[in-house]
Amino acid sequence: MSGTPPPFTADDYKARMDRAAQAAADAGLAGVLVAPGPDLVWLTGYRPPATTERLTMLVLAAGQDPVLVVPTLEAPDAAEAAGAPALTLHDWTDGKDPYAATAPFLDASGRFGISDNAWAMHLLALQKELPGTSYVSLTDALPMLRAVKDAAELERLTAAAAAADMTYEEIKRVQFEGRREADVAAELAHLLRQCGHEQVDFTVVGSGPNGANPHHEAGDRVIERGDMVVLDFGGLMHGYGSDTSRTVHVGEPSAEEQRVHDVVRGAQEEAVKAVRPGIACQDVDRVARAYITEAGYGEFFIHRTGHGIGVTTHEPPYMIEGEQQTLVPGMCFSVEPGIYLPGRFGVRIEDIVTATEDAGRRLNNTAREMAIVH
Amino acid sequence: MSGTPPPFTADDYKARMDRAAQAAADAGLAGVLVAPGPDLVWLTGYRPPATTERLTMLVLAAGQDPVLVVPTLEAPDAAEAAGAPALTLHDWTDGKDPYAATAPFLDASGRFGISDNAWAMHLLALQKELPGTSYVSLTDALPMLRAVKDAAELERLTAAAAAADMTYEEIKRVQFEGRREADVAAELAHLLRQCGHEQVDFTVVGSGPNGANPHHEAGDRVIERGDMVVLDFGGLMHGYGSDTSRTVHVGEPSAEEQRVHDVVRGAQEEAVKAVRPGIACQDVDRVARAYITEAGYGEFFIHRTGHGIGVTTHEPPYMIEGEQQTLVPGMCFSVEPGIYLPGRFGVRIEDIVTATEDAGRRLNNTAREMAIVH
Repeated sequence: MSGTPPPFTADDYKARMDRAAQAAADAGLAGVLVAPGPDLVWLTGYRPPATTERLTMLVLAAGQDPVLVVPTLEAPDAAEAAGAPALTLHDWTDGKDPYAATAPFLDASGRFGISDNAWAMHLLALQKELPGTSYVSLTDALPMLRAVKDAAELERLTAAAAAADMTYEEIKRVQFEGRREADVAAELAHLLRQCGHEQVDFTVVGSGPNGANPHHEAGDRVIERGDMVVLDFGGLMHGYGSDTSRTVHVGEPSAEEQRVHDVVRGAQEEAVKAVRPGIACQDVDRVARAYITEAGYGEFFIHRTGHGIGVTTHEPPYMIEGEQQTLVPGMCFSVEPGIYLPGRFGVRIEDIVTATEDAGRRLNNTAREMAIVH
Repeated sequence: MSGTPPPFTADDYKARMDRAAQAAADAGLAGVLVAPGPDLVWLTGYRPPATTERLTMLVLAAGQDPVLVVPTLEAPDAAEAAGAPALTLHDWTDGKDPYAATAPFLDASGRFGISDNAWAMHLLALQKELPGTSYVSLTDALPMLRAVKDAAELERLTAAAAAADMTYEEIKRVQFEGRREADVAAELAHLLRQCGHEQVDFTVVGSGPNGANPHHEAGDRVIERGDMVVLDFGGLMHGYGSDTSRTVHVGEPSAEEQRVHDVVRGAQEEAVKAVRPGIACQDVDRVARAYITEAGYGEFFIHRTGHGIGVTTHEPPYMIEGEQQTLVPGMCFSVEPGIYLPGRFGVRIEDIVTATEDAGRRLNNTAREMAIVH
């Protein structure tokens, strides 16, 4: 494990804010409105103590200095954010109208990109305060704003993936048979933290029939000999995400279990091989889906093939039919086909992959063959 | 400590959903759209494994069975929610349009209440899918939907407050001097959990000048002899919130510190005494503010006097100038005036109070005199 990467500086955040404002202008938008959450963290380094009904919003527009509207009582926290020197804080006090306080920074007839996760109550209030404005979600307007990672970001994603790989190597050695899924999940969380994660977002342990629910987390089911077990875990390390899946088996698998696993592994392999700049995101999905369909399991692959990853564990670009965005070097995303046989078992294999100048490169590098656990 | 209260049943959730649909109709709305979060938990008992860009939305309308739109891969989780038997699940699969899937359940020319925290991207997509609809945030449309607690809810809030009180009694005994705020905060979190909380939302330890920032959490500052220390902590127990503040002193206070503390304590006492059904929320704020202003510290009381509490630790009703909603028996909210002297120290005293038939009753009952800690 390498050490802690150098923190992003105010200049880094300024460059990102400038890039966002310029991208908005290029897209014909008057600006970008950023709510607390991953966009705000990425643009300013600021994460409010809690996301509440009190309006916090970053206003970016080309040719205008960035302004962060914050509740007065959170202003001291905001002022300590790494990106704070690159923006102006504008605080509003309980009892005052935060939308009226924000309006002067907005073109009253402009169209704005707004964070996907901005609260509806804030959007509705802005629509009312400035009836001449219109809005589009950032994912619709500037879906690729955070998608292409620079070297410092790739370094963090690589470190997070390496920590997830270490976690997998360790978890393979623990006892599965006779223990509750939740107990193995707790070990996964502990291992992720031990390997350097500051935040654990999910620790799926889907044993036997539970593995057939792709988003089953982990429950009281006691893992038995003969179970397939889907493991899918990740979180944040140095502010960047990990997300990997492997499907293991307690004892020897049946021929059918082995076959399903082989199909998923083959689909994942082919999809990763398909990654290169210039192909569309949907092509990655199509390659995986065609492979699984060809093998006769198409109807049991019930989710998209992948999603971007960065300061969150799920973000654009999405590897899904209909997504015509082309891959660009520096994009990082999951490739995670799966097959889910209701009431029986599931298999999913997932790596984070980055598009290089001419191909795809996995950030996760543990063996994808079905591991036999005890 | 009493044991775990009986869980809410499908009938309980059905009654809440019926109440919400009826309240919407009474307010002239076509229905209510509920996003993952506290509204959804309160109405259905369902908490999705994670809140993501995938649409999950409960549609309630008078004369129509409740429908929960969910991503296919989360449908098994939703089906296990306690309120699931009282609603119909309608799932949509990756690659399909979730808004088109939702539209058939909405009056295409209706006005809907929508959860405050629904994602802007979902609201914008609904506005686009059904241009004849209009929306208002639930806090604006039905602010008091969850505000009046029934006996089972009050029992949970009382238990959560008792656990917070036990936490305060314990934390007073620990070492403050020479330790970092963050270490005391970690003890607060540990104690809350030990006393029965399943979730810790905040553990403010604001020592010396940090206490003058009302939302300072806890940091690396080492607490010194002579410091005022604001403690403000809470979370969820059996799904319901706690939130209490006391301000303690390391060693003997100065005359000024004692005076400021006395002023806040007097303001809190008078504001609690003012609570009774029929007075407006803003009156509670006015009483506290007048008391502090009279004492010469009005400009240093920089936040509202209180907020509702229930399945969240911050919700309507708000005790703030301009809030004309009258108090109703069963409402539960904080009364928490404070004085913040920039760069020096702060004092805040907070109890959860419920409006009874004829007065206010505190759920927090620890001493409010300034405790001397070591």
